Amino acid sequence: MAAAASSSLLAAASSSSRAAAVSARRAPSASPAAAASLPSPSRASCAPPLRASAARTLRSRVVASAAPAMQPPPASRVSTVVDVDLGDRSYPIYIGAGLLDEPDLLQRHVHGKRVLVVTNTTVAPLYLEKVTWALTHNNPNVSVESVILPDGEKYKDMGTLMKVFDKAVESRLDRRCTFVALGGGVIGDMCGFAAAAFLRGVNFIQIPTTLMAQVDSSVGGKTGINHPLGKNLIGAFYQPQCVLIDTETLNTLPDRELASGIAEVVKYGLIRDAPFFEWQEKNMPALLAREPSALAYAIKRSCENKAEVVAQDEKESGLRATLNLGHTFGHAIETGTGYGAWLHGEAVAAGTVMAADMSHRLGWIDESIKKRAIDILEKAKLPITPPEAMTVEKFKSIMAVDKKVADGLLRLILLKGPLGTCVFTGDYDRNALDETLRAFCDC
Amino acid sequence: MAAAASSSLLAAASSSSRAAAVSARRAPSASPAAAASLPSPSRASCAPPLRASAARTLRSRVVASAAPAMQPPPASRVSTVVDVDLGDRSYPIYIGAGLLDEPDLLQRHVHGKRVLVVTNTTVAPLYLEKVTWALTHNNPNVSVESVILPDGEKYKDMGTLMKVFDKAVESRLDRRCTFVALGGGVIGDMCGFAAAAFLRGVNFIQIPTTLMAQVDSSVGGKTGINHPLGKNLIGAFYQPQCVLIDTETLNTLPDRELASGIAEVVKYGLIRDAPFFEWQEKNMPALLAREPSALAYAIKRSCENKAEVVAQDEKESGLRATLNLGHTFGHAIETGTGYGAWLHGEAVAAGTVMAADMSHRLGWIDESIKKRAIDILEKAKLPITPPEAMTVEKFKSIMAVDKKVADGLLRLILLKGPLGTCVFTGDYDRNALDETLRAFCDC
Repeated sequence: MAAAASSSLLAAASSSSRAAAVSARRAPSASPAAAASLPSPSRASCAPPLRASAARTLRSRVVASAAPAMQPPPASRVSTVVDVDLGDRSYPIYIGAGLLDEPDLLQRHVHGKRVLVVTNTTVAPLYLEKVTWALTHNNPNVSVESVILPDGEKYKDMGTLMKVFDKAVESRLDRRCTFVALGGGVIGDMCGFAAAAFLRGVNFIQIPTTLMAQVDSSVGGKTGINHPLGKNLIGAFYQPQCVLIDTETLNTLPDRELASGIAEVVKYGLIRDAPFFEWQEKNMPALLAREPSALAYAIKRSCENKAEVVAQDEKESGLRATLNLGHTFGHAIETGTGYGAWLHGEAVAAGTVMAADMSHRLGWIDESIKKRAIDILEKAKLPITPPEAMTVEKFKSIMAVDKKVADGLLRLILLKGPLGTCVFTGDYDRNALDETLRAFCDC
Repeated sequence: MAAAASSSLLAAASSSSRAAAVSARRAPSASPAAAASLPSPSRASCAPPLRASAARTLRSRVVASAAPAMQPPPASRVSTVVDVDLGDRSYPIYIGAGLLDEPDLLQRHVHGKRVLVVTNTTVAPLYLEKVTWALTHNNPNVSVESVILPDGEKYKDMGTLMKVFDKAVESRLDRRCTFVALGGGVIGDMCGFAAAAFLRGVNFIQIPTTLMAQVDSSVGGKTGINHPLGKNLIGAFYQPQCVLIDTETLNTLPDRELASGIAEVVKYGLIRDAPFFEWQEKNMPALLAREPSALAYAIKRSCENKAEVVAQDEKESGLRATLNLGHTFGHAIETGTGYGAWLHGEAVAAGTVMAADMSHRLGWIDESIKKRAIDILEKAKLPITPPEAMTVEKFKSIMAVDKKVADGLLRLILLKGPLGTCVFTGDYDRNALDETLRAFCDC
């Protein structure tokens, strides 16, 4: 009974999703620099005719429903717009180099006359002035407040969140204000949840400045904070007005943070996009060397994958959970070692290897896929084993409060079938999980 | 410009809403005791033919869309079901004496196997055991946890809310659990917000045990907590699975709490239901004497009014704000005197008199309406002036952070026209507000 209740999404479900909502489009006046001389594997060139056709159909629908507000201005630096198709909550992801130099792009999504920029002590000295300029240039009606939070996952808590509310209330912001998240995943998650809860919901905009946030956390409306006993346990599904990705902000990103973001890029390849994975295998050196065209393509393709999944399953009733490959193990590492000891992507990388190991033990994937997953994460200089502090018992007790537990049963995202396919299921041999945990932990 | 931006809802808008969604229905096997020998003014007997016709149409639609899950069991004590029509978020309000003795009614709305009852130190000794029995009787698959919070508006804060999250996490509740709010408005607001945010949203059920919660706060999905600088500034719109009103719980309610709830009953009459107001004028002694049929009718008619408004404007883009007659002044009193010094309904009563006074100064209502508003609140033994501690400046500074401020302009609900009509507007003479504040404050 219990196993049946945890409906398993077979590889087919994940795979069929590929046909839907290919919603990226080149901006009319896109700069050719960012994504021009790209390696071959694009969605169109690898999909069979039927899928390509379905993709075209959905693409039209997406563009038609959301186009009026989403066209970048003429001569814009926007190289790609990815539409997240969620009915009246649809929004564009703008991707390009130098987008913070385009005030029009940001201002069109500001509602009301008051803006609160939420950022942190690391990002504020780099970009707060620029963003404030972009919000107010030729726009004297808008006033900007800011709140600068301490930097790090360990501050993604209720106490820090209250600082945002305090600032908003003290500044007498009203329902027609706009919150702007300027920073990485922690800032985006906290600002988004604050926007969801302040006066029961105000507008917000995501300006992600880390690769992690640009390829994953800023897209899809998951917001929240950590509880001392588990990650992201308190939050809301709350969509932004737009996501503005200025790839030039990656110039100031430390190497370790860059690698952390790559863990999520690898994830998309493993769970649903084999050509993208193969592209990564060839282009990892270019990504690590921060070649602009490689980074831009990785961001674009990641956002497309995420938008496709979110459009089909906004509130994670099934398919969306597959985006959490490696995250159940990873969240346990983050919680178990104290938030911030490992970066999110580092924990996800080790978790991904554990998930691949367990998938292989179950006989669901070939040894070669497991090996390729390990190899690519190693190439990205990411950890492929959990830290020593993590014991079998620690993993088990923390994983028991994971959001994907249903009626007491832990559901996991595991690889199954050829490269680029996965399942979300509670129907697996418990021994395989135990064996994986024992293989990766000293005690 | 600013005034134009605060779109004023004219009386006609409020009035026309009356024709929509009369969604109450008698249960097939309803006990005749609760609502039988009622005084005359029902919606049908006072509405002109056109309105009655529109009401019938909408009523069918509501019942058709939501009936399968909402039919009370045969031989139920449910005397009335009011449907809140919100598409896929629709739910029933069950009203009747002794409903907590009907386990089926509650159990059909429980999702998953785990329940967390959120209640307080006053209500727990009275009803927690009964509710636990109702949840588990003949239902061995369900287990019930509870968290008992301190009682009072001053505990409607982030620290107390965290106790709910702590209990939920420690109990390893998952997304398929159900939160049950057992208590008054504070418990309902906090439990609802906790349910909205825990794991980004779990099911919840409202079991209101005060008249205030039964006629107002448990219906419509407004949840949240207070900020030290303002009431209900942090929260979510989040609808319950059902509202279960056992009118017998009022037997244990202190007189002062009963009167507090009556303030909201009076509100419905003043803003949109003149026949209901006239009924109250005749039946106030019966309400104060807790005559079951009078209380049942007041609850039913209040829930119908609230459901009609919420169905048309769930997220308060306009019409729903009219339910806040007297609340801007009232919230200022609650915040200014320290949460809990006055009960919510007491503050609303004084605020309603201030709103009526201002409406009269503006020339928008006859003296007689203002006088009737004061008289009925006095009859209910509610305060008709703010406490001495409230100065003009205190009112102004607190009202400036009210949620109904838009782009800096304070919008108010004011009476305008004949009895039972109001407006929500920022387009009024500021002098009238100043005069009202000065008339009610010593300095």
